[in-house]
Amino acid sequence: MKHTVTPHPSQAIGVFDSGVGGLTVVRALIKKLPNESIVYFGDTARVPYGPKSSDVVRVYTRQDTDVLLKHYVKMIVVACNTVSSVALDVVEKQSPVPVVGVIEPAAEIAARRTRTKRIGVIGTLGTIASSAYTKAIHRHDPSVTIEAQPCPLFVPLAEEGWDNHEATRLIAREYIGPLVEKGIDMLVLGCTHYPILKNIIGEAAGSAVTLIDSADATADVVADLLAGHSLLRTESEPAEYTFLVSDVPHKFREIGERFLGRRLDRVEKIDDTHFT
Amino acid sequence: MKHTVTPHPSQAIGVFDSGVGGLTVVRALIKKLPNESIVYFGDTARVPYGPKSSDVVRVYTRQDTDVLLKHYVKMIVVACNTVSSVALDVVEKQSPVPVVGVIEPAAEIAARRTRTKRIGVIGTLGTIASSAYTKAIHRHDPSVTIEAQPCPLFVPLAEEGWDNHEATRLIAREYIGPLVEKGIDMLVLGCTHYPILKNIIGEAAGSAVTLIDSADATADVVADLLAGHSLLRTESEPAEYTFLVSDVPHKFREIGERFLGRRLDRVEKIDDTHFT
Repeated sequence: MKHTVTPHPSQAIGVFDSGVGGLTVVRALIKKLPNESIVYFGDTARVPYGPKSSDVVRVYTRQDTDVLLKHYVKMIVVACNTVSSVALDVVEKQSPVPVVGVIEPAAEIAARRTRTKRIGVIGTLGTIASSAYTKAIHRHDPSVTIEAQPCPLFVPLAEEGWDNHEATRLIAREYIGPLVEKGIDMLVLGCTHYPILKNIIGEAAGSAVTLIDSADATADVVADLLAGHSLLRTESEPAEYTFLVSDVPHKFREIGERFLGRRLDRVEKIDDTHFT
Repeated sequence: MKHTVTPHPSQAIGVFDSGVGGLTVVRALIKKLPNESIVYFGDTARVPYGPKSSDVVRVYTRQDTDVLLKHYVKMIVVACNTVSSVALDVVEKQSPVPVVGVIEPAAEIAARRTRTKRIGVIGTLGTIASSAYTKAIHRHDPSVTIEAQPCPLFVPLAEEGWDNHEATRLIAREYIGPLVEKGIDMLVLGCTHYPILKNIIGEAAGSAVTLIDSADATADVVADLLAGHSLLRTESEPAEYTFLVSDVPHKFREIGERFLGRRLDRVEKIDDTHFT
């Protein structure tokens, strides 16, 4: 059902993801909007969404959205590429507050900035199979050719923290080399884990290719949208950050802090049978 | 609750896993016991169990066990190292038919065959953190030193099919080199995905180290147990194989057939809200 609340500037921004990856989006939001409070929900009990069918992802998405709406957020940022690809409409239908996904902001920037009219997109199997970036980029510029490549090994490499490892370099060259040969000048990092491997991905792509980080692109859109709706927080007390998860998996704190770029002081496990 | 059926030789062996990995156990069972019918359930909607907390894994395990019991299986093979590590008692409590996990068979063989009294164990973060192999090996021989190493990249490498790739070699050397330096002479493949990478793991371990494949070890125990309980199937019609999943994820058939080593003709998605 649609909740009937009206968003208020003092409320927090809600962010959800299938797991810890969305913390790179939170990091970008904190950098761009340091005065905004944030409620984050990571569905760590059911991560990853990437390989799952879209039917399952849509069911999960409804439940994730409900978690945030119960916290009276003033907007919802879908910090999960899989959900943004196959279930953004589910969130939009359910939410009475504005919704931003991570696909559209990066797609728009890439479409606007490409000169060679060839854009590379990398992501999970689910994101690439959905063609969500291709469709979003083509809405801005139908003349662009998209070179899409699923990179299923990047998520576990980012979680292992192998951001400066020879194996990661080899794998990055294997995934990204063929895109570069096809003449891309933009490479969209279509998965929230990938900013962790930005340096190695950048090396593999070479200096002629610009990396488009969807976390940064999304933070810019969120800032514009809050300003446009007069929803920017004006209080001078420090912003508050709440981190909710559906499970506390092994190494959660270590991985989470690497992704967030700061300490994860308080993490609450939600109590909801939907998630077990 | 305990079901009150009595197992009968004509019934199928039930096998469950968190996803496709358990198909390597099915493969070993088919090889060892070609006359046995098998019902396999892979909880592909909620894979992987490895990184999840044991509380969540125990809840999932109850539901997985119920799926098999509803198919009137004559025994249950827990083809998931994570479940065998942290929730085998859940299955044993719930099942009226014999239960075999994948930890104990490999642990026993390794403990019996080691000469250096140093055994390497590799698995997911969850399996290694549980110390289940260490405990099981020490029940057979408390004098053995265990060198345990989580290898979170091996699962996605096996699913990518990179079983002969330079990056996999580098990663295998990184994970396994330190175990070899410590003088192990047995290496337990404590994850059902790892047989796919057996060649590269064997190269990294060197010829002085014997690989113990828990799938093969488990199939041997299942054969003995069925014979001991007079539960070996005697019909001469061909055995039947039923493959059930909770979701049909991307590349499921491709990955599944690589793991099973034969065609996956019929895969049924179960209809049960527990799994969505």
